[in-house]
Amino acid sequence: MEVTLMHHTPLEVCAHAIRTCWQSFDKSDEGGEKDKALIDRVGNKYKHASTLEHLVYTFYIKGVSRALLQELARHRITSLSVKSTRYTLKELKNREPFNENDYKKAEEFLVLTGNKMVDTASIKALNNLQEILKLGTSNDIAKFCLPESYKTELTWTINARSLQNFLELRSSKSALWEIQSLSHQLFDTLPMEHQYLFEERISKKQN
Amino acid sequence: MEVTLMHHTPLEVCAHAIRTCWQSFDKSDEGGEKDKALIDRVGNKYKHASTLEHLVYTFYIKGVSRALLQELARHRITSLSVKSTRYTLKELKNREPFNENDYKKAEEFLVLTGNKMVDTASIKALNNLQEILKLGTSNDIAKFCLPESYKTELTWTINARSLQNFLELRSSKSALWEIQSLSHQLFDTLPMEHQYLFEERISKKQN
Amino acid sequence: MEVTLMHHTPLEVCAHAIRTCWQSFDKSDEGGEKDKALIDRVGNKYKHASTLEHLVYTFYIKGVSRALLQELARHRITSLSVKSTRYTLKELKNREPFNENDYKKAEEFLVLTGNKMVDTASIKALNNLQEILKLGTSNDIAKFCLPESYKTELTWTINARSLQNFLELRSSKSALWEIQSLSHQLFDTLPMEHQYLFEERISKKQN
Amino acid sequence: MEVTLMHHTPLEVCAHAIRTCWQSFDKSDEGGEKDKALIDRVGNKYKHASTLEHLVYTFYIKGVSRALLQELARHRITSLSVKSTRYTLKELKNREPFNENDYKKAEEFLVLTGNKMVDTASIKALNNLQEILKLGTSNDIAKFCLPESYKTELTWTINARSLQNFLELRSSKSALWEIQSLSHQLFDTLPMEHQYLFEERISKKQN
Repeated sequence: MEVTLMHHTPLEVCAHAIRTCWQSFDKSDEGGEKDKALIDRVGNKYKHASTLEHLVYTFYIKGVSRALLQELARHRITSLSVKSTRYTLKELKNREPFNENDYKKAEEFLVLTGNKMVDTASIKALNNLQEILKLGTSNDIAKFCLPESYKTELTWTINARSLQNFLELRSSKSALWEIQSLSHQLFDTLPMEHQYLFEERISKKQN
Repeated sequence: MEVTLMHHTPLEVCAHAIRTCWQSFDKSDEGGEKDKALIDRVGNKYKHASTLEHLVYTFYIKGVSRALLQELARHRITSLSVKSTRYTLKELKNREPFNENDYKKAEEFLVLTGNKMVDTASIKALNNLQEILKLGTSNDIAKFCLPESYKTELTWTINARSLQNFLELRSSKSALWEIQSLSHQLFDTLPMEHQYLFEERISKKQN
Repeated sequence: MEVTLMHHTPLEVCAHAIRTCWQSFDKSDEGGEKDKALIDRVGNKYKHASTLEHLVYTFYIKGVSRALLQELARHRITSLSVKSTRYTLKELKNREPFNENDYKKAEEFLVLTGNKMVDTASIKALNNLQEILKLGTSNDIAKFCLPESYKTELTWTINARSLQNFLELRSSKSALWEIQSLSHQLFDTLPMEHQYLFEERISKKQN
Repeated sequence: MEVTLMHHTPLEVCAHAIRTCWQSFDKSDEGGEKDKALIDRVGNKYKHASTLEHLVYTFYIKGVSRALLQELARHRITSLSVKSTRYTLKELKNREPFNENDYKKAEEFLVLTGNKMVDTASIKALNNLQEILKLGTSNDIAKFCLPESYKTELTWTINARSLQNFLELRSSKSALWEIQSLSHQLFDTLPMEHQYLFEERISKKQN
């Protein structure tokens, strides 16, 4: 998977929002250490979490499975625009069938699990789907035999409060392995100076 | 698919909410024709749509595909609790493999499209998955080769404003066939006296 | 203030939603002790808080100040229909001016603080407003001199997850005294068998 | 009133989000005319309104009344951090009482309506409040006699979809005059190249 940060709100906007409440603008250091401490104190420790909503991140996420998408979409205080199978399955039409053991090649379209039986089953499904599409079946019918390992992409906008909740639940050891991995990549992709807001929410990486 | 209405708010609660604004409680007929006309006038015609949010419906939806679930979950002003593949795939373990042309039997687990090639491809995927599970592979790995036609169930809570939006977008002829069908079943499952609030939003059924 | 519960979802709907995930319907006792323990375990302890969203409460709240309304309206995962000053200020027109020390009479329109200076200042403002309205000034202009102690009413729909958040923040000793009091009345108005879901969130009453 | 745009998402982020669905990135002109037409077509005409949610604006709004704030806060798909009367009323303590007809001076703290009786009533309330505060009454008690014309400030974050809804409802001739005025100032403060997304939603200014 590949995660890119396309846009984010600078910390000083959040600090300004907090200073609106107490009218303490004169104490600002424009997104510096004082402002950072303020955001953590008010947004995290004082549970005035709505102030964190002014920080908004737009990520571009590539190469995750539609299995993962099922879980990600349950987080509803976000905005997501997802690659549509209804409109893009034609991408398979002009391809050769995949060799059932050529995982490297299939990885262009599938998230691999490392379990050969599962990955081969996905490749078989991919080949069946390709054949069906080549016969001119409409995407809306063909997509029903799509395996959930099929790769998708999305542009995802989420504020810091909602992202804290996402990272806490989805980096947990009891979460699906792929979404644990996404959680860590999201964290790593955040601007360095924003990461401190999420550090207590994210579980340590598994070896 | 099968849709059941598990709970809903009576119309008079919404009428009471509207009458709160103008303090016109004495004009109520306790959910009768006057109240119904009021809800339509204020909630729909006057665009005071937040008043419709007091009407909340909880549906139980069975036998829809995970392809449909991908679309349904994009509607974010709802609450959904979904049958978890992570916890329930074991249901396949004690079954015999499915005959690749026995659609009737496979329908217990799959949403059929009526296109034999697609449906057979789904059955093949189901059999591959079953074999993988029988070997003791964990659900979190095995589920990646699940076909999107796999049937799921959910308890879904949605208010009338959000349901209007859902029905307008998803009963449209340009929507996925299965979610068009769900839209009509949701409408048909609504209490008779609530249906008038949604009639202008829902497209006519396709023959 | 006066709080009435107009409608609520029964606990078994929430239990059913949770049992959807694991398909454990056969273990239900239809909203009894087993189901109650399940809801607490999954919704609270396991942090699967979205399952609590299926429980929806509609309250009718009377006799709170517009000062309190300013705070209540910040809780955005709720639906509220509020008595409109733009449409109802005429209620003052046919009244006699209030004696500045007759708090009992003024209480029909004002939330009293117990501080005589503050309460008298509110009565003065009420009398000024009344005079202005009697001269035919439109509500949209007149309402700008309304004191925030002016009483209002609302129909308020909120789910259990959002209500937990409300009660935790607003029953706290550091919250505004009037909203602390509302928090306790909301809790007391909940159906007895629902209260256990909120007990850990609500602060003890102040003497 | 004074409205400043503190931060906004560039149009190309939204165009990228839309192009994610169809994988049409090669047709982008990086936020130019083609991208602008795409956003309008998909987000507005095709009713794929969730794509507009990627555009997020943070405004700083100064000098609006708490009467207006009551209405603004009903728009719940936004984030707002508001000047707290609980913490900032001390600002009145060190001031001289206001002359009841010196509107110019009182305008520092009050939104004036142009109706002398109303504005004088607000000044009287302001003086009463000031006196009460000077005697050491706590803000939490004193604020109950605050007039709704009292000026406040807020940092307000809202996405384009929610802002469209706000402008449509609040620029209408039937809306409160002050919020009509705010709607037009918000529109005028938007980046020039974003305004086309809102033009059909906003009512013409009143003379």
